[in-house]
Amino acid sequence: MSKEAPERNGLLISFEGSEGSGKTTQISLLSDKLEDAGYDVVVTREPGGTELGEEIRHLLKHSKSGNGMVPEAELLLFAAARAQLVREKILPALDEGKIIICDRFLDSTTVYQGVGRQLSKEPVTVINRFAVGDFMPDWTIILDVPAEVGIERIRHRASDIPDRMESENIEFYRAVREGYLLLAKSLPDRYSVYDGAQPKELVEDEIWEETQERFFRND
Amino acid sequence: MSKEAPERNGLLISFEGSEGSGKTTQISLLSDKLEDAGYDVVVTREPGGTELGEEIRHLLKHSKSGNGMVPEAELLLFAAARAQLVREKILPALDEGKIIICDRFLDSTTVYQGVGRQLSKEPVTVINRFAVGDFMPDWTIILDVPAEVGIERIRHRASDIPDRMESENIEFYRAVREGYLLLAKSLPDRYSVYDGAQPKELVEDEIWEETQERFFRND
Repeated sequence: MSKEAPERNGLLISFEGSEGSGKTTQISLLSDKLEDAGYDVVVTREPGGTELGEEIRHLLKHSKSGNGMVPEAELLLFAAARAQLVREKILPALDEGKIIICDRFLDSTTVYQGVGRQLSKEPVTVINRFAVGDFMPDWTIILDVPAEVGIERIRHRASDIPDRMESENIEFYRAVREGYLLLAKSLPDRYSVYDGAQPKELVEDEIWEETQERFFRND
Repeated sequence: MSKEAPERNGLLISFEGSEGSGKTTQISLLSDKLEDAGYDVVVTREPGGTELGEEIRHLLKHSKSGNGMVPEAELLLFAAARAQLVREKILPALDEGKIIICDRFLDSTTVYQGVGRQLSKEPVTVINRFAVGDFMPDWTIILDVPAEVGIERIRHRASDIPDRMESENIEFYRAVREGYLLLAKSLPDRYSVYDGAQPKELVEDEIWEETQERFFRND
């Protein structure tokens, strides 16, 4: 039998950061550690994580129709995928006391579409709230890397042709990075910023340390 | 050479009403008449009307992933298709002085997702505005039919298996109808309600009469 997450209704941890900041690696490391410690862990990715969400992901990342996509449509598609993910996957898993780790969540919209694409803040906030409903991640880990590092890492990924978001220019990456740092400043309790340019083992240790500090010290 | 639409920046006319209210027929009749009168007419449909929009249309209407689609995701997908349609098609056509006839526009979201699915009014309004930007149709024609008539007409359509929206129950149709009538009451200048249960030639004549009255009397 798995241990229940320490919070009454499970736990939602989201990972944020530019492309190439190491989110996927760190999520997998943290998820393994939590499972080894006996917790039920669900990892989701955005956009995606549900059948509908994966179809939306395809539209956003690889579809030919993405070429002329306007920023407003982009934002609304991300929000649609998230609305489905929250209600179909996240809320039921939280109710079962699981730990959900999200590879991106609503802060990506605030930063990528709000800051990066310069859409006005107020509707972005309303749409984010509408999509996720009445709850926020318990903890958000921002992996911070300089724009150059993120871009360089993506270039060295073996398999992929860069998708539409990854092909943005360096100014976009810089704006995204600044956007995340501003968010973290505004709500220091919810966000932790880690230097994603460090060796991954170091980042892994720091995150695990804080995970225990935040949620499991009194286990 | 085509005549320019009388308004400085073209003209946007939207048709609204339940499934089976006769929108497609009346749009085609009005569009023919306007073209015969020498105007450049563009007819668009929602969701759809752009490459991205048609892919979203497929998600909304026929995709397997539509089965468990939550109302919030549905609304955001409609809004995404509309955001693209406005910026890629409608605004450029308006700038060229064309007459655009929309088979559904933002009022469908207000009524179908707001009233029909009972989503709260405020975010629906904000999302609608975000999607269409800073403009409204010059005129909205609501084709009003009793729920029973709409459903009956859909059943008699030769080719189609009813799609996800068409398969809703009679209470949903009723709520949609009431929603439209309330909208029309709230802004009588923008909306005209026609009895869509009348013979189509009668509806056609009444709409053409008002079109001339509203926009072309001083031509």
